[in-house]
Amino acid sequence: MGDEVTRVMVAVNESSIKGYPHPSISSRGAFEWTINKIVRSNVSAFNLFFLHVQVPDEDGFDETDSIYASPEDFKNMKQRDRIRGIHLLEYFVNRCHDIGVVCQAWIMQGDPKEVICHEVQRLRPDFLVVGSRGLGPFQKVFVGTVSEFCWKHAECPVITIKRKPDETPQDPVDD
Amino acid sequence: MGDEVTRVMVAVNESSIKGYPHPSISSRGAFEWTINKIVRSNVSAFNLFFLHVQVPDEDGFDETDSIYASPEDFKNMKQRDRIRGIHLLEYFVNRCHDIGVVCQAWIMQGDPKEVICHEVQRLRPDFLVVGSRGLGPFQKVFVGTVSEFCWKHAECPVITIKRKPDETPQDPVDD
Repeated sequence: MGDEVTRVMVAVNESSIKGYPHPSISSRGAFEWTINKIVRSNVSAFNLFFLHVQVPDEDGFDETDSIYASPEDFKNMKQRDRIRGIHLLEYFVNRCHDIGVVCQAWIMQGDPKEVICHEVQRLRPDFLVVGSRGLGPFQKVFVGTVSEFCWKHAECPVITIKRKPDETPQDPVDD
Repeated sequence: MGDEVTRVMVAVNESSIKGYPHPSISSRGAFEWTINKIVRSNVSAFNLFFLHVQVPDEDGFDETDSIYASPEDFKNMKQRDRIRGIHLLEYFVNRCHDIGVVCQAWIMQGDPKEVICHEVQRLRPDFLVVGSRGLGPFQKVFVGTVSEFCWKHAECPVITIKRKPDETPQDPVDD
């Protein structure tokens, strides 16, 4: 029944809600679902791969401190992004460590949906888990959905975990 | 880490290739994938639910013996469909029995994609596994795809297992 471990890639991102702890509601839900429903107590049979894709300058618009006057400002911003990304991955790696699942985590830059599909091609996981805000068709027009793109284009099976209705923030686009 | 078993619904169908053993290539692939990559040796932690949806008279067009001259002919046809459906489910139930996974299997009539989503709503599995022929966009226009509909409408996470390229029959619409 397969001696090799099952390799699961989990795409994770930061919360868009200020002051909220780092992982988004839907990435945390996707991770917990994977642990509770798939891995369960069979921790040695699975390896998790956490990929966090940072969109350059994603949060630049609503941060009042994002005024760039020198090359140093850009360097500071990049440094800040890097630290935030590391904190995000720390959350998931710590959880895996507590549970006893072997994992790896890394950060990339770019368009999340494209980078995720590219990393799937490179690493060939057995499947990909993506959280989803579960937006309606009208909202999707404006925000796009990574999960739908990955479902169509990733070269491995994809499982989309929709956010629970009772965890939806006031603005459902937030996560 | 969850004391309740993980309930997995697997939608299965018959092969469209005459003379081929009963399960379609993609349903068998989806089942084997679920066993090898998810259930693995943790057989007591999972229950499988096999749903086979029969489309009434699906194969009537190319069977030379499908001439209906009396109410008896329809009864015979229904009886034949029932037997074929049972043979299909027997394959999966036997496999589960050999592996040691608890399962249930049943047959329903109707439009597969709608019946599957309806049964998900009724049984609330933790996730649904659907095989897919992995057709291109042009072929999809003509044959429709159950997996895409379920991915969009089923009220649980859906994992689509595409048929392996080396298992594609001469006519990729066959399965």
